[in-house]
Amino acid sequence: MKTYPIGLVPGPVSVPQKIREAWLTDFGSSDLEPDFFELYAQNQALLQKLLGTKNDVVITAGEAMSILWGGLKNALKPGEKLLAVASGLFGEGFADMARSIGAVAETVAAPFDSLPDPEKVREAALRFRPKLITAVHCETPSGTLTPLKELGEIAREVGALFLVDFVASGAGTPINVDSCHIDIGLLGSQKVLSLPPSLSISTLSPAAWQVFAEVNYSGYEAYLPWRDVPETPYMPYTHDWQSMQALHLALTSLMEEGFENVYARHARAAQLCRSMGLEMGLELFPLSEDICSPTVTAFKVPSQWAWKELDSALRAHGMVVGGNYGCLADKVFRIGHMGSQAQEELVRRGMNVLKEVLKTS
Amino acid sequence: MKTYPIGLVPGPVSVPQKIREAWLTDFGSSDLEPDFFELYAQNQALLQKLLGTKNDVVITAGEAMSILWGGLKNALKPGEKLLAVASGLFGEGFADMARSIGAVAETVAAPFDSLPDPEKVREAALRFRPKLITAVHCETPSGTLTPLKELGEIAREVGALFLVDFVASGAGTPINVDSCHIDIGLLGSQKVLSLPPSLSISTLSPAAWQVFAEVNYSGYEAYLPWRDVPETPYMPYTHDWQSMQALHLALTSLMEEGFENVYARHARAAQLCRSMGLEMGLELFPLSEDICSPTVTAFKVPSQWAWKELDSALRAHGMVVGGNYGCLADKVFRIGHMGSQAQEELVRRGMNVLKEVLKTS
Repeated sequence: MKTYPIGLVPGPVSVPQKIREAWLTDFGSSDLEPDFFELYAQNQALLQKLLGTKNDVVITAGEAMSILWGGLKNALKPGEKLLAVASGLFGEGFADMARSIGAVAETVAAPFDSLPDPEKVREAALRFRPKLITAVHCETPSGTLTPLKELGEIAREVGALFLVDFVASGAGTPINVDSCHIDIGLLGSQKVLSLPPSLSISTLSPAAWQVFAEVNYSGYEAYLPWRDVPETPYMPYTHDWQSMQALHLALTSLMEEGFENVYARHARAAQLCRSMGLEMGLELFPLSEDICSPTVTAFKVPSQWAWKELDSALRAHGMVVGGNYGCLADKVFRIGHMGSQAQEELVRRGMNVLKEVLKTS
Repeated sequence: MKTYPIGLVPGPVSVPQKIREAWLTDFGSSDLEPDFFELYAQNQALLQKLLGTKNDVVITAGEAMSILWGGLKNALKPGEKLLAVASGLFGEGFADMARSIGAVAETVAAPFDSLPDPEKVREAALRFRPKLITAVHCETPSGTLTPLKELGEIAREVGALFLVDFVASGAGTPINVDSCHIDIGLLGSQKVLSLPPSLSISTLSPAAWQVFAEVNYSGYEAYLPWRDVPETPYMPYTHDWQSMQALHLALTSLMEEGFENVYARHARAAQLCRSMGLEMGLELFPLSEDICSPTVTAFKVPSQWAWKELDSALRAHGMVVGGNYGCLADKVFRIGHMGSQAQEELVRRGMNVLKEVLKTS
């Protein structure tokens, strides 16, 4: 299916027409035009407001995996230590990625339906003395949201950089980069921002830049060449003007709605999704409603259904949701209500379809 | 300037409206839909035809710098040897990039207004025994086009992989990947294909895959995770459906025009650009017309003009061309007539502006 009548996937989400129209402009060269550098600077400033930070913001081209790799590669040399805080697939992924580049990784793991225990993180951090601590704010496969503040304080206590993947939560719920002591904050364009997956956003603290300068990593995901952009009006590679303009439209639209209103809209959509699901007899995957993300809801696949059949039945009614990966495949499915999809009306339509479909089993 | 009345920059080039309209579709999730995997496969097949190869084609998201790094990083481990064939800034860049990742690099250099001498390449290759030989087909800063066949034969003689950057020439002039023995061929979307800079295309030979498996590089630019896409319908990261659809429109449009006609159109536009330039007293930067690229023409900045002034004067008439970098900055400027800009009518309009402006000096 090319376009979803009722799209409730946990990203890439539906891109509003107003944003897609950014591509109708035949922009000139992003390498040459002061207009482009100004747009880049405007987006940096808006993102600082959105993410609660005075840190630098770097906007690069490519899917968010580029900055997940970038965060690790710019901060760690082979042999250096990473502590991955994990209660989900992406949290554990950081440890695997770090090992694949020769770093030494340890994981403080919690069951995927729970949150990491900060006390265990503190113990491990004090013993292991990592250079970098990683965490995932919204674990999309699990539908959980991990509190960041205490983890950030632990990182500060042990003198580690704190890297947070808020790819699937940023802009849908408050992110306070500075008060959570996040040194490397990572956001993708195709989740709450409701853009195509063509841009990646990083918040980088002075401490992060200092480590990056020592590591001096070279490659597409290198941050150092972006350090003085756009004061130095030279881009490390040709940027994507259409995407940058679309980002501007998305950010100004969030600003006009008011960030608090945006968060409230997400909370309402999530609340409605959970309550309608529970009412029709579905079981939440996270252990409690308190730890659920406002951007995605994970339900267990009902025992009388195979995931494939349920997916097909929903699709027959135009509704598309997300399945799952790894150990959650076929067991847990996900309803994405982030960004353009965080609309009670859309969630209600989708959940009503789900209710009708479940009755047919 | 956001949109150029007369855009003749050497990429990113003007994106035709028909292609920009690909973004008006609100595509579903590229992670989930068989339609997307089919589109990917169709584009692979069209690119094989366009680039004259039976090798695998991998289409990744991100600007072409991602695959320039990728080609090196997947093929070379620290300490291994690269021979960079260079008669321009990008050719030399490969040696710098290789050194930055711990490889040992040697350059066979020719003046930037000339072509590399294959005999010197052969001598160096036989002595140095590199694992990888790199070359740049169209040196955009210099406006030259390097013949590839003999270089490919040398690489085969010495058992090296042959990497070619045809980012700024591919689709504008015949690229015979297989007959030139190109193991790693690299193409960007924002040059002749006339798309935004959001996709990168690589042709990868069986020998390249074998080396990649030995090196086993991890990162955003890793090729191994793409090896079985889309037979294995799992993408290493969320792909960009709009860009993939735009690529399809661009490729089918080239196919309908006929590749030979496309090449002839580029040759005519380039010929017109050169002859009008020479007629108005400009001096070509390349030593002879025979070595000029059909996608970009490099002229010397006339002695009575500072580049900045000339650029401003052209812009005042709506014409935007490219300046230059490094040792060519302010000395050589470039007229891009690739892809959507390879139109005699457009080149004539632009060159007439240039003629009028030069008269004012």
